[in-house]
Amino acid sequence: MTRTEDLLARRRRLLGPNVPTFYDEPVEIVRGQGVWLWDAAGRRYLDCYNNVPHVGHCHPKVVEAIATQAATLNTHTRYLHEGILTYAERLVAKFGHDLSTVMMVCTGSEANDVALRMGQAMTGKTGMIATDATYHGNTALVSQLSTRRPPIGGYAPNVRLVPAPDTLRHPDGGAAFAAHVARAIAELEASGHGFASLTLCPLFANEGFPTLPPGFLDETVRVVRKAGGILIADEVQPGFGRLGSHWWGHQALGFAPDVVTIGKPMANGHPAAAVIARPEVMEAFRGAFGYFNTFGGNPVSCAAALATLDVIEAEGLVDNARDVGGYALARLRALNHPRIADVRGAGLFFGVEFTDAGTTTPASAFVLRLVEEMRRRGILLNKIGPGGGTLKIRPPMPFSRENADLLVDTLAEALAGLPE
Amino acid sequence: MTRTEDLLARRRRLLGPNVPTFYDEPVEIVRGQGVWLWDAAGRRYLDCYNNVPHVGHCHPKVVEAIATQAATLNTHTRYLHEGILTYAERLVAKFGHDLSTVMMVCTGSEANDVALRMGQAMTGKTGMIATDATYHGNTALVSQLSTRRPPIGGYAPNVRLVPAPDTLRHPDGGAAFAAHVARAIAELEASGHGFASLTLCPLFANEGFPTLPPGFLDETVRVVRKAGGILIADEVQPGFGRLGSHWWGHQALGFAPDVVTIGKPMANGHPAAAVIARPEVMEAFRGAFGYFNTFGGNPVSCAAALATLDVIEAEGLVDNARDVGGYALARLRALNHPRIADVRGAGLFFGVEFTDAGTTTPASAFVLRLVEEMRRRGILLNKIGPGGGTLKIRPPMPFSRENADLLVDTLAEALAGLPE
Repeated sequence: MTRTEDLLARRRRLLGPNVPTFYDEPVEIVRGQGVWLWDAAGRRYLDCYNNVPHVGHCHPKVVEAIATQAATLNTHTRYLHEGILTYAERLVAKFGHDLSTVMMVCTGSEANDVALRMGQAMTGKTGMIATDATYHGNTALVSQLSTRRPPIGGYAPNVRLVPAPDTLRHPDGGAAFAAHVARAIAELEASGHGFASLTLCPLFANEGFPTLPPGFLDETVRVVRKAGGILIADEVQPGFGRLGSHWWGHQALGFAPDVVTIGKPMANGHPAAAVIARPEVMEAFRGAFGYFNTFGGNPVSCAAALATLDVIEAEGLVDNARDVGGYALARLRALNHPRIADVRGAGLFFGVEFTDAGTTTPASAFVLRLVEEMRRRGILLNKIGPGGGTLKIRPPMPFSRENADLLVDTLAEALAGLPE
Repeated sequence: MTRTEDLLARRRRLLGPNVPTFYDEPVEIVRGQGVWLWDAAGRRYLDCYNNVPHVGHCHPKVVEAIATQAATLNTHTRYLHEGILTYAERLVAKFGHDLSTVMMVCTGSEANDVALRMGQAMTGKTGMIATDATYHGNTALVSQLSTRRPPIGGYAPNVRLVPAPDTLRHPDGGAAFAAHVARAIAELEASGHGFASLTLCPLFANEGFPTLPPGFLDETVRVVRKAGGILIADEVQPGFGRLGSHWWGHQALGFAPDVVTIGKPMANGHPAAAVIARPEVMEAFRGAFGYFNTFGGNPVSCAAALATLDVIEAEGLVDNARDVGGYALARLRALNHPRIADVRGAGLFFGVEFTDAGTTTPASAFVLRLVEEMRRRGILLNKIGPGGGTLKIRPPMPFSRENADLLVDTLAEALAGLPE
C-alpha cells in the first residue's frame, strides 16, 4: 500500500465516504510558503488555486500575530477587548455606502446564515433569491441557495434560483437578469412567503466568473429596492482586493449592497468571517435575534485578520493583483488552441474556458484532463463554470509576473501534449 | 469618558446594539494564564466561568502547536494531511458505541446544524425535539431549538420542545421525561413531519444542570429507538472530561447516542468543533448532502485540538476535575444561607441554586447581585437555570483546591455582605 493509499484508507475509515479531495491521485501537502506548496515527497507546486492563504501561505506577519495573541489572551466578546474594535474600524474604512457595522463569525457559511436572517428581520418576510449555479455555504439555511447538490427533501418553497449570467451561451444584458429577479420576486410575493433578500457574488465566481460590464446590476438593484428587499453581496471570493481594481467586487461592478459577507481570505486561513451591514440592518437583526458567537471576534481571530489587512496594504497586494492579473490575462490570450472559447477574469481571478471546437458545449472531460496534467507538471489549479469547462486560476495575492510566466508556459506545454 | 465608556461607545457604533457583555460594568480583559485573567488596569481575576480555555488560558503547549503549524502549513481537507487523521484516531478512541467517524467543522453551531441533518438523512423525516430551556447554537436551523429568544416568525412546525428536567421544582423520574418525548414524537408523526432526532446536552447544562441519576435517559432512549429517530448528544459543555468521572456526559448518564457534537473546549479557544457519528449515520449524511467546510479540519485546528487532548492526558485534568470538583462541592455544601436551595454539579461544573427562602421561586435578583459582587471581589462566574437562580461555576480544568478555597471563601464573604 502506498502512502497515499494508506491516507485515503484512513480518511475513508475515520472521516467517512464522499469527503471531497482534489485530483485523481490526491496530493499530500505538508508545507507552504508564499505561492508555493510542497508535498510529502518534497516536490514543489505553484499554487494557482488557493485564495484562503490570501497574503501567501504561512505569511510570517500573520503567523507572528497569531502566535503572540494566542500566548497573551484568547477569550470572547462578552468581555471588552480592543482587538475587535481596532479591526472593525480598519475594515469598515474599506467600505462606502454606510456599510459601517460589523459582526464577526467563524465561517462564510455562518456569515451568510446571518445575512439571510437580516433579510428576514428587515422585511418580516422569508423569500430568498440566488442564481441557479452558485454556492454560498453549507448550513441548512444557506445550502438552500446551492445547486451543486439539491437539499434533501428538495428546496424550501421560499427559495427562487434565477438563471446565472453566462456571457458565452446567453450574453443577455443586465435588463434580462433583472427581469428574472423581478419574476422571482413576484412569485415569492404571490406565494405568501414574500421577498426578503437577493444574495449574489459580485464576481459570479461559482457561476464561472462571466465578463460583465460595470452597471450590469443597476436595473436589478432598482428591482430589489422597489420590492423592499435587501441585497446581500457575498464577497468571500472577490473581496480583499483580489480583483485588483477595487477592494470589493461590488465596487468593481458599481452597486451598493445592504449587507456584505466576507470569509476565506479574511485572516489568511485562520477561521474568521464577518457580516458588514448598514446600521439599520444590523439593528434590525440584533433586535429580532439573540445572537452570540463564542469564537467569533475572539482576540486571536482579530489579530490574524488585522495582520492580513496590514500585509495587503504594506505589500501593495491590490496593485500587484491588477498588474500581474493583467499580465497573465494578456499572456493567456496569446495562447492558441482550437478549444479555447474565452479567456477572462479580473485581477488574480482569471481563467480559460474550453468548448468543443466551434460550439459552446463545455469541454468538460478535456478540462478535467488538463487540470490533472497541470498537477503532474507542478501547477495546482482547478475547474469551474457551466459543465466545469473553465480553468479556474485564483492564486495567493503575492503571485508575481515570473509565477504567471511559469503558469502560462506550463499550460502551453500541457495543451500541446494533450490530444485535442 | 472612562476607558470602559469609550470601548462601549465604539462597540455600539461598530458592532451595533445588543451585543451581549457580562456584568453591569463590563470587564476589559487583556491577558490570561491558567485559571487567571487580568484586566486593563492590571487587576487579577480568578476565572470560574470559562470552559473554552479548557486546559487553561494560553496554555504554552497549545500556543506552541498553533504557532508551529501556522508557520508550516494551513490548508484544507481537499488535500491529504496527516493531522486530521492523527487527531481523529485519538479522538474516536475516547468513544465507545461505534462512534468512530468524525467530521470537523469550526463551531458547535455548525456541528449541531450537521447533526440535525444527519437525523434527516437517516430517517427521511424532519421533526426535531429538544428541551424547552436550552441552547444548542446560532444557525437558523439550530436556533429553532433555542428558547432564549424565539426565532423570528415563531418556531417552525417541525420542532417540539419538551419540559426540561428540574429536580427542585418537578423531580420527576426518567419515565416522565420519556413520556414527554413520546408525546412529542407522536405529535410530529401525526403532523406529517415525522420524527428525525432528539438533541440534548447529557448534563442539561443550560437547563441548570439538574442532578439526575445514571439511567435517567434509559426509557427515553428506548422511546427514540422504537420510533426510528436518532439521538444527538451535544457534549459542547460536559465533554472533554469536565465531569471528572468520564470523558463524556453521555458516559456519565449511561446511554449510547448515535451522534455526538463537540465544540468550545476542543482546541482550547481556537475555532474548532466536530461531529462524531456511527459510520452508517456519517454515510447517510455524506450520501445525502454535499458537504465541505473550508476551515474545518485544517492543519492548524487539528494541531491545536491534538495539543489540547495531549495536555488533558499529560496533566491528568480529568482526575483533577473529579478531585477538585468534589472538594469544591463539599465546601459549598457547608455554606449556610437561608436562600440556598440546592448545591449540585459534577466535576468542574457545579453551582448553587438560590430561591426565595422556603419556596422554590428562583432568587433571580439576588443571584444577579451576587454575581456582580463576586466580580467586584475578583471572581468571575455567572448564573443559569430556571429564572437565572443558579450560580454557574465552570472554571478551566487546571482549577486547584487552593483556587476552590479562594472561590468558596470569597463567596461566603460576599453572601455575608449582601442583604438577604
